[in-house]
Amino acid sequence: MGMDDDHRMDVENALLGPYQEKSKTFSSLKNKPFWVVQTALRLDRRVYYVLALLTVLSLFYIGSRSSPIILFVFVICTGSLVYAVYLANWVLAKDEGPPEMSEISDAIRDGAEGFFRTQYGSISRMAGVLAFIILGIYMFRKSTPEQDAAGLEKSTLAFITVLSFLLGALCSGIAGYIGMWVSVRANVRVSSAARRSAREALLVAVRAGGFSALIVVGMTVMGVAVLFASFYVFLGVDTVNNMKMTELPLLLVGYGFGASFVALFAQLGGGIYTKAADVGADLVGKVEQGIPEDDARNPAVIADLVGDNVGDCAARGADLFESIAAEIISAMILGGTMAKRCKLDDPSGFILFPLVVHSFDLVVSAIGIASIKGTRDVSSKSLVEDPMVILQKGYSVTLFLAVLAFGGSTRWLLYTEQAPSAWFHFALCGLVGIITAYAFVWISQYYTDYKYDPVRQVALSSTTGHGTNIIAGVGLGLESTAMPVLVISVSIVTAYWLGKTSGLQDSKGLPTGGLFGTAVATMGMLSTAGYVLTMDMFGPIADNAGGIVEMSQQPESVREITDLLDAVGNTTKATTKGFAIGSAALASFLLFSAYMDEVSSFSGVPFTTVDIAIPEVFVGGLLGSMLIYLFSAWACAAVGRTAQEVVSEVRRQFAERPGIMTYQEKPDYARCVSIVASASLREMIKPGALAVISPIVIGIVFRLIGQATDQPLLGAKAVAGMLMFATVSGILMALFLNTAGGAWDNAKKYIESGAYGGKGSEAHKAAVTGDTVGDPFKDTAGPSLHVLIKMLATITLVMAPLFLDN
Amino acid sequence: MGMDDDHRMDVENALLGPYQEKSKTFSSLKNKPFWVVQTALRLDRRVYYVLALLTVLSLFYIGSRSSPIILFVFVICTGSLVYAVYLANWVLAKDEGPPEMSEISDAIRDGAEGFFRTQYGSISRMAGVLAFIILGIYMFRKSTPEQDAAGLEKSTLAFITVLSFLLGALCSGIAGYIGMWVSVRANVRVSSAARRSAREALLVAVRAGGFSALIVVGMTVMGVAVLFASFYVFLGVDTVNNMKMTELPLLLVGYGFGASFVALFAQLGGGIYTKAADVGADLVGKVEQGIPEDDARNPAVIADLVGDNVGDCAARGADLFESIAAEIISAMILGGTMAKRCKLDDPSGFILFPLVVHSFDLVVSAIGIASIKGTRDVSSKSLVEDPMVILQKGYSVTLFLAVLAFGGSTRWLLYTEQAPSAWFHFALCGLVGIITAYAFVWISQYYTDYKYDPVRQVALSSTTGHGTNIIAGVGLGLESTAMPVLVISVSIVTAYWLGKTSGLQDSKGLPTGGLFGTAVATMGMLSTAGYVLTMDMFGPIADNAGGIVEMSQQPESVREITDLLDAVGNTTKATTKGFAIGSAALASFLLFSAYMDEVSSFSGVPFTTVDIAIPEVFVGGLLGSMLIYLFSAWACAAVGRTAQEVVSEVRRQFAERPGIMTYQEKPDYARCVSIVASASLREMIKPGALAVISPIVIGIVFRLIGQATDQPLLGAKAVAGMLMFATVSGILMALFLNTAGGAWDNAKKYIESGAYGGKGSEAHKAAVTGDTVGDPFKDTAGPSLHVLIKMLATITLVMAPLFLDN
Repeated sequence: MGMDDDHRMDVENALLGPYQEKSKTFSSLKNKPFWVVQTALRLDRRVYYVLALLTVLSLFYIGSRSSPIILFVFVICTGSLVYAVYLANWVLAKDEGPPEMSEISDAIRDGAEGFFRTQYGSISRMAGVLAFIILGIYMFRKSTPEQDAAGLEKSTLAFITVLSFLLGALCSGIAGYIGMWVSVRANVRVSSAARRSAREALLVAVRAGGFSALIVVGMTVMGVAVLFASFYVFLGVDTVNNMKMTELPLLLVGYGFGASFVALFAQLGGGIYTKAADVGADLVGKVEQGIPEDDARNPAVIADLVGDNVGDCAARGADLFESIAAEIISAMILGGTMAKRCKLDDPSGFILFPLVVHSFDLVVSAIGIASIKGTRDVSSKSLVEDPMVILQKGYSVTLFLAVLAFGGSTRWLLYTEQAPSAWFHFALCGLVGIITAYAFVWISQYYTDYKYDPVRQVALSSTTGHGTNIIAGVGLGLESTAMPVLVISVSIVTAYWLGKTSGLQDSKGLPTGGLFGTAVATMGMLSTAGYVLTMDMFGPIADNAGGIVEMSQQPESVREITDLLDAVGNTTKATTKGFAIGSAALASFLLFSAYMDEVSSFSGVPFTTVDIAIPEVFVGGLLGSMLIYLFSAWACAAVGRTAQEVVSEVRRQFAERPGIMTYQEKPDYARCVSIVASASLREMIKPGALAVISPIVIGIVFRLIGQATDQPLLGAKAVAGMLMFATVSGILMALFLNTAGGAWDNAKKYIESGAYGGKGSEAHKAAVTGDTVGDPFKDTAGPSLHVLIKMLATITLVMAPLFLDN
Repeated sequence: MGMDDDHRMDVENALLGPYQEKSKTFSSLKNKPFWVVQTALRLDRRVYYVLALLTVLSLFYIGSRSSPIILFVFVICTGSLVYAVYLANWVLAKDEGPPEMSEISDAIRDGAEGFFRTQYGSISRMAGVLAFIILGIYMFRKSTPEQDAAGLEKSTLAFITVLSFLLGALCSGIAGYIGMWVSVRANVRVSSAARRSAREALLVAVRAGGFSALIVVGMTVMGVAVLFASFYVFLGVDTVNNMKMTELPLLLVGYGFGASFVALFAQLGGGIYTKAADVGADLVGKVEQGIPEDDARNPAVIADLVGDNVGDCAARGADLFESIAAEIISAMILGGTMAKRCKLDDPSGFILFPLVVHSFDLVVSAIGIASIKGTRDVSSKSLVEDPMVILQKGYSVTLFLAVLAFGGSTRWLLYTEQAPSAWFHFALCGLVGIITAYAFVWISQYYTDYKYDPVRQVALSSTTGHGTNIIAGVGLGLESTAMPVLVISVSIVTAYWLGKTSGLQDSKGLPTGGLFGTAVATMGMLSTAGYVLTMDMFGPIADNAGGIVEMSQQPESVREITDLLDAVGNTTKATTKGFAIGSAALASFLLFSAYMDEVSSFSGVPFTTVDIAIPEVFVGGLLGSMLIYLFSAWACAAVGRTAQEVVSEVRRQFAERPGIMTYQEKPDYARCVSIVASASLREMIKPGALAVISPIVIGIVFRLIGQATDQPLLGAKAVAGMLMFATVSGILMALFLNTAGGAWDNAKKYIESGAYGGKGSEAHKAAVTGDTVGDPFKDTAGPSLHVLIKMLATITLVMAPLFLDN
């Protein structure tokens, strides 16, 4: 980075340095959104109020012309956004603490925002290229018979898809930015509040998390609803001789793909950044030098704290955004298909059901967040209750209301005279989803909490050395896939059966509600997504606050409070991962059913079976499974390579400046930040490109093989095989990686709590090795796989025309 | 084991001790075969000659009544068995070296035979129980319409299946025993020969390996041929109103299942034994005490050497036996189905083709083994050539002849007037298989040999610590799945296409040769199995010889020779694993096609599609993939747990007897042997039972769900889904485990060769951790997965009636 000459540059400038330098080599496109933001910030506030009012009014007008349900969704979303803004103002009104705190916080913020800017610069350029490719594909594709009948031009469809894609990508970027924006501001406020009261610190962290959670969920729902309503109005849907509302969801697939495309690179880049910094810092700091985590003497400590923000907050925001978007759109497609098959008079309830579920999600999550209040005794430094208990109380409130709201939504939207008891069947499907979510959270806790036997076994294995610790952790991770798979298997079969027996029938009298049943179960699982995301965001904010307290050398009592919050944050992070992979697993069936529906629609040929007894389809599956392995490999290897650069740099600093260890010299934090940033941006490209390009290549190659050997639809079939095998392998691999990583982490914590010789013992050293290995597993490869699974589903939805013979 | 009181018991008695004690608690059944053997050994040799002659004559009589092809197979097998006996006599005629060598060798032999006896005692009891279960199932199953037409009683079919099962299990046991029998005798003879000449040592090891390879392959072919011919004659096949030859292969499925059932437990028990002893010995000896591998002071060293024999020789013998058996039988089923569909006049060529391929395999492998000769200059201690080059020259000879023989066999057996060019297409399929084998061997070499970049990267990662070494190894292992999957994908599609365009058509004029094409490719891949197995067996024998030389403290020059042979053995072992998993992958498609054929045959309904868009089939797949993870977890955990017991014991011995380190006291080898033996037998049950029980449970549960929800054949479909997903996951997981393990091993060797500080450096310690982790990966879980994949295929073949509605 050309910074070897000036190591004493002050922290802030140095942190910005590499990005400023980089910006010269990149195109001017990169800084554009930020220039726009800066101009926008100079405008008078009243201009904004007027603009916002006009937007809301025009949205309400469009909504009212499409469906009263859409109007309802708009009202709820607007309300929850207002509440989110209130939460943000509440958090920002808190003080930033003494200068030694805000100085560190500023360095973290600058590092995070610099990385975000460069990262999203790269991502936006890639998205731009992809937009042109999609445009090209759709200009030359076949349109569906229904679209032809509706008189839609190819070019209209192409622009619609590209527009959706870009909007999805933009919203995903905003979701990520907001997640990071609030966390780099909330962290120092939590640290500061911890000096006064534990309860206040908890409250700041929860409300900051709640803000970004509500924004992320609200924006997902709003985005889909706006697109849906606009297309409805401007394409003249449901008017004479035009397309039907049941066809409309197919036009939204671009939005889902845009969201997952951005999320994939956000998660990869952020995940590589955060873990390379963490691993690098720990390997030299903890293991070699024996200094504590987040010690100010460690040159990689700021990079590590920056990582929490870009890896956990920004990436998780984008991840959840795309999860919900992909699942809403797929469920809408399935709802539309089913409504058409059953020839329902008013299909809008079935199509718009997912939007309403998430509107209620916003309401119940907001109530859950609001239910967590400050105590009267603000001066007390000790918590009256365990913070985990407080969070779980809020979750119970949310969950109770969610069940009621879900039951109400099914009765409202899924009641049809053709099948009067269908709504009740679907309400039960939702319950299956909610129970599945609970089971996943419980299982991931069982395998990663040191209260239970599995983690204690890993800790015991650490006493016989590094090797046995690793073997035990790998064994635990592999084993932990069993129970979730059993749960998901029961859920899929049950929800399908409940849907199938709902009484909905197609024109031939065959039951058709099965697939929609699994869709509703997925919606049920996600019906408390807002609150879960709040708890998840809480984790990295608390983690950062702890780091700031540690670095600014606050008294022991303050550290105790942030340590406690940090520990709770670790648990909520682990359970959210269980929740995320559970929803991905349950949604998998939904996502590829949507793909099959779309292929049927494009090709005009029923595409209802994926026969893996056909060699090419089986080979597609084989390649799909392999894709998961290769992607995980590259993600892990990227962390390993980047961490090695950090290790070498930290070692060099310790060697060249012996004063660092005695607090006489200040380490060069900025250099570590810049090394991690440039390496992780370089490393995210390879696995990301693999994930995006492979399905396209597989589809095209097998389409050509199909044409040569006279097998129609072979490309689409092989892609379906790939999608299904990749999903299954991805679920298993993600479960393995997440759980093994979490277990190693907590086995180390268990030993640090005093077991097997405690800190500094041989067992502890072995446990630290396990933790190091687990870091890229649980925070880079694992979460990237969640995104990958859904990205594969959305990319196949968008690219489907490529796999079909013209 | 009740041995705490008497630690100074002499080694041999102590080694036998635990088994003698155990035998009291077990049933008398266990010692029975050995009592029979002892009585048999007392008989006059001439009695045997007469008996053997009578057997051969009656076989030839039966063979001549069934098909001239069978007669040809009998002649070749008999000839190669005679040659194998010659090789054994040649090896046994070598001297056992000085008393200090033979003493160690005796201890190893006793330990290995004791373990084998107890292990196979357990296995035979489980097989006995299973035989009764199979009998029960077949007494109540539906027979096929063809079998009904042939007038076969249910009870006849039941006894045929059980008889095949027991014969398969018995032959598999014999194959394992012979592998171990020769290796525990050859090891000391190799050590002794190494004192005279490297070339002679090599020759002893090769010929010992060749003996067991020829016996294993010969017995597989002979077993199938004898069963086929006997059923042909005694059931009156091909006579008026009776069953056709095309139906006959279905009756052989029991043989394949018997073979894989025994192989699974043999590989599991042996694999756990060998790696628990190895890991345990290394963790304390190498890592903590810093003494060399195979040092006589390490109390676990004899257990480690015993492990090579029971884990590598016995288990690999049983593994290859069942691989070849399962693939021969499946190919025969497919050949029969195709011949029936194409209404060929004489189907015998297509059905018996696999037997002939392996007969030629015996001949060409024998020639390959014979081509490795002693040099004239016997007195020279140095090798004139690199032993790897010598082995590869032999392989080239074998391969060249195999290609010729394969071409000849296809022309002889697969020529039909209906499609005159079909034989040439199938010859090309065989070539595809041979090339695939080559590609697999090359890829596994690339990823595990430190001549190439991947392993060097792992070595480099060791310089930054234990954690980065593990991350790099895991990354490498995951990445290494990509190329083999691409190769296998191309092979399957190519072989299928070659078969499909062969000109063979069914009565409707549709091309039918596709599946048989993949079957022939598999046969091509396995057409040099005899020689490959020889090279594989060479590895553990050389390894053991090295251990004996080390322990008996021979001069440096002798050690150099055995070290060289050991290094070559490591390479051949790694490449054989590539070969084994490649053949499993290529055979996968063949195996489940055979299953589908069988279900069609039993149910009387065409069963040609496996539609994973059906939720239950998809769930079957999900469960199948999970099975692989859980099985691997339990296999790894078993090694971890057993190794911990070894570690504790070795630490205890070093602590209680400080004289061991100064050679003043003798360690208690026997106690380690007994601890590993009892623990590994206990630990093999859980993963083994999982593998056997899961497919049955899945089949029955989904059959019941199918009956409740009115979906015919649902059980069989879900099992097909399970089988295919499990196969894909199993291939990937086995590739990952084998390659990562091999790479860690060689990264350590690379550092030991002087890189990054060499032996004793921090990098070396990290590399040893990687090696420790890799041990259960590459020698327990990985090879067990090879067997598991094929066991799943054969168990579904045998249990199919359970999954079908009556």
